Amino acid sequence: MTDIRRLKARTRADYRYILEYRTRWSDNDMYDHMNNSIYNFLYDSVINTYLMEHCGLHPPSSPQYGMVVHSHNDYFASISFPACAELALRVNRIGNSSVAYEIALFEKGHESVRSVGEFVQVFVDRDTGRPNSKGMNPELRRGLEKLLVDSHKSKL
Amino acid sequence: MTDIRRLKARTRADYRYILEYRTRWSDNDMYDHMNNSIYNFLYDSVINTYLMEHCGLHPPSSPQYGMVVHSHNDYFASISFPACAELALRVNRIGNSSVAYEIALFEKGHESVRSVGEFVQVFVDRDTGRPNSKGMNPELRRGLEKLLVDSHKSKL
Amino acid sequence: MTDIRRLKARTRADYRYILEYRTRWSDNDMYDHMNNSIYNFLYDSVINTYLMEHCGLHPPSSPQYGMVVHSHNDYFASISFPACAELALRVNRIGNSSVAYEIALFEKGHESVRSVGEFVQVFVDRDTGRPNSKGMNPELRRGLEKLLVDSHKSKL
Amino acid sequence: MTDIRRLKARTRADYRYILEYRTRWSDNDMYDHMNNSIYNFLYDSVINTYLMEHCGLHPPSSPQYGMVVHSHNDYFASISFPACAELALRVNRIGNSSVAYEIALFEKGHESVRSVGEFVQVFVDRDTGRPNSKGMNPELRRGLEKLLVDSHKSKL
Repeated sequence: MTDIRRLKARTRADYRYILEYRTRWSDNDMYDHMNNSIYNFLYDSVINTYLMEHCGLHPPSSPQYGMVVHSHNDYFASISFPACAELALRVNRIGNSSVAYEIALFEKGHESVRSVGEFVQVFVDRDTGRPNSKGMNPELRRGLEKLLVDSHKSKL
Repeated sequence: MTDIRRLKARTRADYRYILEYRTRWSDNDMYDHMNNSIYNFLYDSVINTYLMEHCGLHPPSSPQYGMVVHSHNDYFASISFPACAELALRVNRIGNSSVAYEIALFEKGHESVRSVGEFVQVFVDRDTGRPNSKGMNPELRRGLEKLLVDSHKSKL
Repeated sequence: MTDIRRLKARTRADYRYILEYRTRWSDNDMYDHMNNSIYNFLYDSVINTYLMEHCGLHPPSSPQYGMVVHSHNDYFASISFPACAELALRVNRIGNSSVAYEIALFEKGHESVRSVGEFVQVFVDRDTGRPNSKGMNPELRRGLEKLLVDSHKSKL
Repeated sequence: MTDIRRLKARTRADYRYILEYRTRWSDNDMYDHMNNSIYNFLYDSVINTYLMEHCGLHPPSSPQYGMVVHSHNDYFASISFPACAELALRVNRIGNSSVAYEIALFEKGHESVRSVGEFVQVFVDRDTGRPNSKGMNPELRRGLEKLLVDSHKSKL
C-alpha cells in the first residue's frame, strides 16, 4: 500500500531518461483508452532505445542481449489515442547479469503519472542463451549505472 | 522464491479454461522468441473471451467493464513463432468490484509452463468510469466464480 | 511502372499534414527492419489523428465512421527501430461517402521516401453499418477537402 | 470491377494451404471489428509459417529471406474478436527472385470470404540486402511452386 502511494507520486524528476512516443490508433481498445498490453510495448521501447544508444547494444549481432524474466505494472490513470506519451526510465538495481528497470508513463502536458512498472532483464550470451559467469559486459554495465538511483527506495 | 518455484510447477490441470492461440510472425522479436509484451496480449485475449462467452460481457454496450489496474508476470522459458500457444485461465480472488486472474502460457505439445502472470481488473460503470457501490453485476460474478480456485495458495 | 517511379519521387512537400512517430521495439521483425504490417498501423494513426483533430470525428460516439475497404502500399526502402518516422498525409479523391488517402512514410533526417500507400475509407452510419444516402457529413467533407490535391495525378 | 467481383467469390477451395488463427482482444478497434492493419499481420503469419515449414526458411540464419515490396488488400466484410479466422494461401506468380502470394481471410463457420489481398516478396541475400543474380534458392522455389495456381486468372 505504501509502495503504491509512493509510486503514484512519481514525477518526471524521478527519472533520468525520457522519450516521447505518439500513441497509435490501434493502441486504444474498445473502451477508448490505451490497452494495458501497450504499456509493455512502450516500456520495452524506451529500454531498448537506451541500450542501443548508450550501452552499445546492437540487437542483430551483440554477443549478449537481455531477456525479460519478470515484469509488473500498476495502472493509475488511462491515456487515449491520439495523445502523446512520455516514457521515463531509471534503473533500480544492477546484479551480476541482471538489471531492474523502473519505467513510468506520463501524458504530455499533464503532471500526474499514468502508470509505473518494473522490468527485470537477465543478460544472456547469444551462443548459449544463458548468463555468462562473468556477468554482463562492462559497456552494458557502465551505461546502466548512469541510470541507477538509490536502490533502498526501490520496491524490489 | 517459494512462490516462483510453485508457479514454475503449474500444469494445465491447475486451470479451468484453456484456449489455443497460434503465434504470429510479428510476435517474435529480434532474438527469435515471442516478445514479452505479447504475453499480455494473449492473457487479455483469454480473459476477455471468457468474459464474453461465459459472463455476459458485450464490450460495445455492457454497463460495466473491467479495467486492468495491476499486472505482473514471470517468464520461465520462451516460445517462438510459428508454435501454438495454449492460454490457461483461473481466478485467484474475487472482491466487491475486482477480480484477480491467473493466466499461464503453455506451448502445445510441451508439458512445462512457459510463463505465469496475474491481472487485476476492477469493474467500472461505463457512465462514470468508477466502480459501482454495489460491486460487479451478478452475471459477471457468477461467471467468474466458476473459475475460482482455493485462494489461500494464491500469490496475491 | 511510371506510377511507381512517380511515387518513389514523392517528397514531404507533396503532402499537407505530417506527424512524427517514434518507432517501437516490437516494430522490427527478425530481419532488423520494421515489419510491413506496421506501416498500415502508422497510416491508420495519422489518418485518424487528422479525422479527430480537424474533421470532428469522435470515435466512441460519432454517428458516422470510416471503414477501410481497400489498401495498397509500395515499400521502397526500410526503416528500423529506434528511428523516428514521419507520416505524411494527403487526400487524392473524395466521393459521396468515400475518400482515398495517400500516405507516405519518411525517416526523420532523410530525404527519400520509404513507402507510399493508399487507403480507401467508406463512411458508414453507426446505426446501420452502411453508407448514408446523403453521403458523408459536411464537417468530415470540409476537413478532408483541406488535404485534397489535384486528383488527375492520382493512381486510383 | 470484374476483378473485385471475382475476388469476392473466392472460396476455401481456391487455396492450397489454410491455417486457423484465433483473434485477439487487441485486434478489435473502437468500432468493434478487427482493425485493417491486423489483416496484414495474419497474412504475414500464414506466409512465413509456410516458408518455415515447407520451404526450409530459418529466419535467424537463412542466407536468403523475403522482403515485402508491395501489398494490396480488399476488405469485403468484417470479423470481430473473439471469432476464429482462417487464413488461406496460394501463389499467383513466381519470378526469378520474387513471388506474389494471394491470401484470403475467412471466418470459421462462415462461407463467404472476408478479405483477399496480395503480398509481393523479393528474396534478398542476407549479406547484401539485394536479390541474388541466380534468383531465389531452389528449396524456396520448389516449396512455393506447390502453391502456384494458374496465373492467367491472377490480378497482377
